[in-house]
Amino acid sequence: MKKSNIVMQSDFGNDSGLVACMHGICKIVDPSLEIYDITHILPAFDIENASFNIQYVVPYWPKGTIFVSVVDPGVGTNRKASIAKLKNGSFIVTPDNGTLTYLYNMIGVEEIREIDENINRYENTRDISVFHGRDLFAYCAAKLASGIISFEEVGPAYPVEDIILHKIYKAYVETGYVKAIITGADPFGSIELSVSNEDFKKSGFIHGELLNIKIKNNNITIFDKEVLYHKSFGYVPKGNEVIFNDLASFVTIACNQENFALKYNLNLSSENIVEITKL
Amino acid sequence: MKKSNIVMQSDFGNDSGLVACMHGICKIVDPSLEIYDITHILPAFDIENASFNIQYVVPYWPKGTIFVSVVDPGVGTNRKASIAKLKNGSFIVTPDNGTLTYLYNMIGVEEIREIDENINRYENTRDISVFHGRDLFAYCAAKLASGIISFEEVGPAYPVEDIILHKIYKAYVETGYVKAIITGADPFGSIELSVSNEDFKKSGFIHGELLNIKIKNNNITIFDKEVLYHKSFGYVPKGNEVIFNDLASFVTIACNQENFALKYNLNLSSENIVEITKL
Amino acid sequence: MKKSNIVMQSDFGNDSGLVACMHGICKIVDPSLEIYDITHILPAFDIENASFNIQYVVPYWPKGTIFVSVVDPGVGTNRKASIAKLKNGSFIVTPDNGTLTYLYNMIGVEEIREIDENINRYENTRDISVFHGRDLFAYCAAKLASGIISFEEVGPAYPVEDIILHKIYKAYVETGYVKAIITGADPFGSIELSVSNEDFKKSGFIHGELLNIKIKNNNITIFDKEVLYHKSFGYVPKGNEVIFNDLASFVTIACNQENFALKYNLNLSSENIVEITKL
Repeated sequence: MKKSNIVMQSDFGNDSGLVACMHGICKIVDPSLEIYDITHILPAFDIENASFNIQYVVPYWPKGTIFVSVVDPGVGTNRKASIAKLKNGSFIVTPDNGTLTYLYNMIGVEEIREIDENINRYENTRDISVFHGRDLFAYCAAKLASGIISFEEVGPAYPVEDIILHKIYKAYVETGYVKAIITGADPFGSIELSVSNEDFKKSGFIHGELLNIKIKNNNITIFDKEVLYHKSFGYVPKGNEVIFNDLASFVTIACNQENFALKYNLNLSSENIVEITKL
Repeated sequence: MKKSNIVMQSDFGNDSGLVACMHGICKIVDPSLEIYDITHILPAFDIENASFNIQYVVPYWPKGTIFVSVVDPGVGTNRKASIAKLKNGSFIVTPDNGTLTYLYNMIGVEEIREIDENINRYENTRDISVFHGRDLFAYCAAKLASGIISFEEVGPAYPVEDIILHKIYKAYVETGYVKAIITGADPFGSIELSVSNEDFKKSGFIHGELLNIKIKNNNITIFDKEVLYHKSFGYVPKGNEVIFNDLASFVTIACNQENFALKYNLNLSSENIVEITKL
Repeated sequence: MKKSNIVMQSDFGNDSGLVACMHGICKIVDPSLEIYDITHILPAFDIENASFNIQYVVPYWPKGTIFVSVVDPGVGTNRKASIAKLKNGSFIVTPDNGTLTYLYNMIGVEEIREIDENINRYENTRDISVFHGRDLFAYCAAKLASGIISFEEVGPAYPVEDIILHKIYKAYVETGYVKAIITGADPFGSIELSVSNEDFKKSGFIHGELLNIKIKNNNITIFDKEVLYHKSFGYVPKGNEVIFNDLASFVTIACNQENFALKYNLNLSSENIVEITKL
């Protein structure tokens, strides 16, 4: 049987040999493993970004895939080095520092184990302890992928309730009504809401329907308009607003070929509350 | 038998999970497929760049390789999502928006089919329609590579004459004479001509031969000199001009270790006509 | 038996099709080969950087791995295109221009052979001679990896003493004493010494031990302090100095979460001598 792929992300950069060391250690463990990458230019030390970035990749790899995520500002401290088994059957090898937050909320963690460094750490380099990405995370991912160790042999399990979570904005959803906040804007000025595509479904809104969208900042209404809910921005004329399910798993509001955030002069450094109502 | 590789290029960037989603969907289709990349930092929405960039890669992969190119400013409009079978036996999965132009001219398209979205689109995500790169192009490439569908099962064929082509500059070549224009300069100031290495052969010029090169801008001669035609800039002394067949498939004029465009004060924003004559 | 992997680095950039041409030619030679990358954004023409960057990657890939390094300012001149067999059993395909320096010093070269271009160069492109990365280095690496040629069939051997070496700073090490120079600083201001982790061991210093470190610039002492030698910066409080074995194979001095070079106002453009003494 084909072994699981290893799929990595980190903030190590593309310009050195660090990532290649992580790849190579996997090949030392088992030459038949294949290694792929998400990105290695995640913003340095930005755990929330790592947490967000991996959540929309995991569902598009086969069940059983072993992800490695190393954004680890606490390396050398007593943060746990862990492997989580997700409810979709895939695994993620990561410092337990908040990186698991979105996956915890959106896919669910079935079980989590702390890596036992006494048995699951690359031996040759005990003298150099700075590179956990290679000697601990990648190495242990490879042992698990190759079947050298079972998930139980990773190390002791601990309660999934103990997983470190960063703050995450939720949304209120009921039939015909959604209340969320704006969590950011992409480079094109489209704004992302705190409601996932999955949760948004519970509103019962359907593609092709016009919805009333109100955006308030500090209790002042800065946007109040009927907006089409559809599959993508291509379904409205240039310059028109549209609300759609974005590929990064959260609902997004955009202006076709224009910058929504600029057009409505949004202040993204303060809280913007978005209410979406059936007409 | 070893299955064909999938080789991707896009303007999606290296800093997110988008490309990894395209890789993963291929592995979901068939875990035995291998996926490689050309680049994912093509200039955004620049179809001519995508068209040019892939033409010099295709000949250096095995016959039957399945390329995926997604620079798709028209996503969501009625541009065709297609798979072209090239005359060298390789395939390219791409929006039919001009991306095929150089390949059409230099290798030739044997047959082109529009992807039937009703059967060749990833099912799970019909709710999110914005990511054609993953759900349509990569997914369909993987089905073809794995043999799940034949080329005929991609969707209906349409005339190769209907393929969308961007403007392309041609050259006039006869024995002992070539007339072309300058299409651009590389970062080192070497200038690229509109004559392909292949067409240039028809002039009968041979390596080691001195050629007269005239460059005219707005009918004013700005360069008129004897230049060595050879294998590369290494065959002339530092500072000397040389004309050679470039790796990107088009004939190039350079100054060894100097900037040709600067040295002769070329105005690249207007048309420069180049005439090359046997002495 | 699983064939050796090919692992590449160069200064070709990530934004074109050049690297993909190098990958593809390997697949043309043998579709069963797997190709990985170190980085392709090494500083242009910087041989010392290429030499340094590969030395800490090689030990983390399986014995027999075939590395390709192409930073080649002398392409087209009579520099040798070579394959070195390292003493750890791996191979490196590279212009013999100094790229082998660190590997020569730290792992050792068992044998080196110049590639015979008459038999080990990609045939189709004799007309285009500018892309040695593809037609010579990658192509020959693939032939060796696939077993089409043996190491002996690469071309004629020449004395390892003839390998081109760039200047490399050494260190003086005896029991209880090390004298080295500062070779650079990383983006966080941690400074790298000219003493390798391996050589440093011969001092007999042990983790957890306080050492006296003196740094002199132009005979003026600019740092004179007791510093903890330990596994990593995590073992000292924030702002404290620490000396440790870095993952890039050389001993490093850092300030935990601060910038050592800035804090002590180091002038890295002139020579800094570091003396480390047992208390």
